Amino acid sequence: MTATTHWILTLVCDDKPGIVKAVSGAIVEADGNITESQQFSSADTGRFFMRLQVESAASRSTFEAALAPVTDRYRMISQLDIVGRPLRTLVLVSKAGHCLNDLLYRERAGQLAMDLPLVMSNHSDLGSLAAFYDVPFEAHPVTSPGQKLAFEQRVLEVVEEHDIELVVLARYMQILSPELCAALNGRAINIHHSFLPGFKGANPYKQAHARGVKLIGATAHFVTSDLDEGPIIEQNVVRVDHSRDASELVAIGQDEESRTLTQAVKWFAEHRVLLDGARTIIFR
Amino acid sequence: MTATTHWILTLVCDDKPGIVKAVSGAIVEADGNITESQQFSSADTGRFFMRLQVESAASRSTFEAALAPVTDRYRMISQLDIVGRPLRTLVLVSKAGHCLNDLLYRERAGQLAMDLPLVMSNHSDLGSLAAFYDVPFEAHPVTSPGQKLAFEQRVLEVVEEHDIELVVLARYMQILSPELCAALNGRAINIHHSFLPGFKGANPYKQAHARGVKLIGATAHFVTSDLDEGPIIEQNVVRVDHSRDASELVAIGQDEESRTLTQAVKWFAEHRVLLDGARTIIFR
Amino acid sequence: MTATTHWILTLVCDDKPGIVKAVSGAIVEADGNITESQQFSSADTGRFFMRLQVESAASRSTFEAALAPVTDRYRMISQLDIVGRPLRTLVLVSKAGHCLNDLLYRERAGQLAMDLPLVMSNHSDLGSLAAFYDVPFEAHPVTSPGQKLAFEQRVLEVVEEHDIELVVLARYMQILSPELCAALNGRAINIHHSFLPGFKGANPYKQAHARGVKLIGATAHFVTSDLDEGPIIEQNVVRVDHSRDASELVAIGQDEESRTLTQAVKWFAEHRVLLDGARTIIFR
Amino acid sequence: MTATTHWILTLVCDDKPGIVKAVSGAIVEADGNITESQQFSSADTGRFFMRLQVESAASRSTFEAALAPVTDRYRMISQLDIVGRPLRTLVLVSKAGHCLNDLLYRERAGQLAMDLPLVMSNHSDLGSLAAFYDVPFEAHPVTSPGQKLAFEQRVLEVVEEHDIELVVLARYMQILSPELCAALNGRAINIHHSFLPGFKGANPYKQAHARGVKLIGATAHFVTSDLDEGPIIEQNVVRVDHSRDASELVAIGQDEESRTLTQAVKWFAEHRVLLDGARTIIFR
Repeated sequence: MTATTHWILTLVCDDKPGIVKAVSGAIVEADGNITESQQFSSADTGRFFMRLQVESAASRSTFEAALAPVTDRYRMISQLDIVGRPLRTLVLVSKAGHCLNDLLYRERAGQLAMDLPLVMSNHSDLGSLAAFYDVPFEAHPVTSPGQKLAFEQRVLEVVEEHDIELVVLARYMQILSPELCAALNGRAINIHHSFLPGFKGANPYKQAHARGVKLIGATAHFVTSDLDEGPIIEQNVVRVDHSRDASELVAIGQDEESRTLTQAVKWFAEHRVLLDGARTIIFR
Repeated sequence: MTATTHWILTLVCDDKPGIVKAVSGAIVEADGNITESQQFSSADTGRFFMRLQVESAASRSTFEAALAPVTDRYRMISQLDIVGRPLRTLVLVSKAGHCLNDLLYRERAGQLAMDLPLVMSNHSDLGSLAAFYDVPFEAHPVTSPGQKLAFEQRVLEVVEEHDIELVVLARYMQILSPELCAALNGRAINIHHSFLPGFKGANPYKQAHARGVKLIGATAHFVTSDLDEGPIIEQNVVRVDHSRDASELVAIGQDEESRTLTQAVKWFAEHRVLLDGARTIIFR
Repeated sequence: MTATTHWILTLVCDDKPGIVKAVSGAIVEADGNITESQQFSSADTGRFFMRLQVESAASRSTFEAALAPVTDRYRMISQLDIVGRPLRTLVLVSKAGHCLNDLLYRERAGQLAMDLPLVMSNHSDLGSLAAFYDVPFEAHPVTSPGQKLAFEQRVLEVVEEHDIELVVLARYMQILSPELCAALNGRAINIHHSFLPGFKGANPYKQAHARGVKLIGATAHFVTSDLDEGPIIEQNVVRVDHSRDASELVAIGQDEESRTLTQAVKWFAEHRVLLDGARTIIFR
Repeated sequence: MTATTHWILTLVCDDKPGIVKAVSGAIVEADGNITESQQFSSADTGRFFMRLQVESAASRSTFEAALAPVTDRYRMISQLDIVGRPLRTLVLVSKAGHCLNDLLYRERAGQLAMDLPLVMSNHSDLGSLAAFYDVPFEAHPVTSPGQKLAFEQRVLEVVEEHDIELVVLARYMQILSPELCAALNGRAINIHHSFLPGFKGANPYKQAHARGVKLIGATAHFVTSDLDEGPIIEQNVVRVDHSRDASELVAIGQDEESRTLTQAVKWFAEHRVLLDGARTIIFR
């Protein structure tokens, strides 16, 4: 007797009648039971998005064989994964540790299924934090174009070597080259320390203070070569008042950055984030 | 050529494999296209819940005929309705008008699909508000057991006469008899002026003040004979501090009451609220 | 024997030692008891801000005489008012009624101390809403430069005639001339249907949808000739997801607009809003 | 030339006219400049509460001498401290590390001014976390009345030896004896894993699930011998839906517990928490 596996299946294709019937038929054929199902038809792009969780004792090959005619017929982009499988993740950091600490703590606490072969940084400050969580850490200075190129080549090497599925920019304070952005398209997440489309450029908290805003926030988004314009995954805000100076806004904002980034990574790891042009579909 | 109708279909039955396939097959048979689909399997009760929105040019009878074999086989409780059809609603009030005002304003603004044949009250205070919105209004004093019985009989008469689907207790300050609760089971919603399971009994805001709570809230729930213990539909809270006296907590709390009740009514009207024992499934 | 009056006193001046002692001394001299006190020293501008509530049986002239030496010495901008006095307010609207409805409802419910001699509009749609609340209403078309000039002159005439303290732009869809902005400087509040500094220009909700934002919001700010760049008074946001189209974002956003504008007006009426350059001090 | 010190002064006494003048006079006498001031008169108890931040180059003894006549005359409970001085804190834990991790991380990040001579636990699980942050850690089993007595005596010994100002129960899963509660009255803070006055007793998240609540939360409160009825310091909630089982509610709730407890400790360390009978005054 085989054990039951809990699968996650995501499907994206042009929207047409009959998709749900075809998909559910294939799942029944693989002796699967649908335990969660979410779908969305985008009026903007005409695309159809679906995420299912399925209990089945069938093997992966049996499941895939049952799905193949459907994914072929509808020209679907599909992904079949096992619930809870750790996501192979590379984290890039600089000096600020709040986002990294939150990611590592939650991974250890069993709240975030990540496999972290390496943390890379352009500074050595966070080495001891990584060491405490037994995660390898590499620091390489990035102060010249040559060093930047070398750093980015090392990133790609690590992505290749460890078959990395997600690169997380956890307050990595360097702008990625267009080439690296392109190479990591759809699998790199950045945390922006502002409530986009809010204050951009340097020191958004200082701008927020000058403008006297009453809420500050953070935005997690996919990395694209168009700086801070990548598809938004998650946003949070917190209330502030006139008594907070710019440095206090930084401290308050960091909490929002941590929880917003961690949430985005968690959803990505659970295949809840799908791209619809410049927008994201989030199946929470 | 027939016009396309947007249908809402809700289904509740014991959870078994193959339900989704069977349902989607029936929908395809009725030339329907699923535009929204949500489902939930309750680990607590073993029940399966589904809500679909379907575009179809088929007539109601064709659609129902296609569904019948499936709803029979799985012994489903099913409901087929048209998106946006106004819900026949009876509102009960006393003296406080904040909830009634919000309901009436949103109905007129096109944000809440309700058909309101009558507002009933045990006081005459809110008659002019109802008049402004052209809704008939009846006030009957309820100061004796006989008057209470008469009032409740009138409620049942109105429910019967207008085929009322939902009775909303919009700060109606009388406890319904167990008989009326039973008669309206699953189709009466109350707003409780506290964050249940918080302060119960009289004057929860005074209790909240005495206890120095930092958040106050409101709870919309189905009416059951077990006072304030009916299944919860929606809850909201708002932050308060030590400087608020009990009367200010009342004013602050009223906003939460209004928006919480309106939200619950809106979800109910859209068939997004399903009962799972003592809990609600909310397909938002 | 004289009755006790509850006073609000606001003071703004350059920050110097000894201010609090001098002020509290003057209050004691007027037999006053300080029941609320808030202060703030702006590191940005070097200005000092104070708001007090004082119980005193002294007459206004006695109180002012006691304060005069202090306000003179520190060259203070001071204002002495009575708690709860209705603010003489002119509301400008166009077609959308959600903000006006909220203001009028709360005024009647006793939650907002306003005296409303007139509502002015460039459309007649909201006349019946104003009529229900017994507030005079004037509609004048604004489709030519001449009509715009006439409308604005009528605004200034009403401001003059009724000694208006605050002009509220409750979704008034016309840009005010620089001359009118200047004339109403510091006493006109607008509600912007976006979370500033977010999407500006036409149809921010459509922009928000295109960008796939996860939170939408509203901003109440003082009117300045620099469109939508006036000092921010209050902001609120609400969570949305990918399933909302632009028209749903509008409906959701309107709730935030109403409550944000009403909150800003309430604080202004209670003398809780003070200007510090391009920022506001809010003594909540 | 002496350097300027930033002082925090808190004052509690029966409410009477002239207090603010007297206090500000004493501060001027000590060449102090008031940079922050908050006050509250409790209508419930007739008590007056004040918190000031003062810049002064005066020595502590000079400052105290200037204040003495005022604190004597009004029989004030007063406290004079230096802004940012680390609070001598003892943390008690059991097995769950989320609250301890948050406290330690923020202390190191400079966001929480604490001096932690020791973490005590009835389990050894969190020893390595304490070690990473270089904080001494003691584990003593508490499985018998004798062991419980010994543990509590050790607590009092540590409190005595290190002049501990605050004992934090960071998910310490033992009920303190009435004697220890009394000994630590007003200087022990507990985090309750529910939104009080919500679900009490064992496993509140399971109760919350059974009841189908839509919001779960956490409450930080002072420890009293009346279990979970101590004065509330801070509360937070987060939205959940029907799809969350009890174990997910636990994980979600832990974030609220961490941030609620840390916030309460931070306010306490900054002398922003004052007791008014069964309620707290929080000068945020």
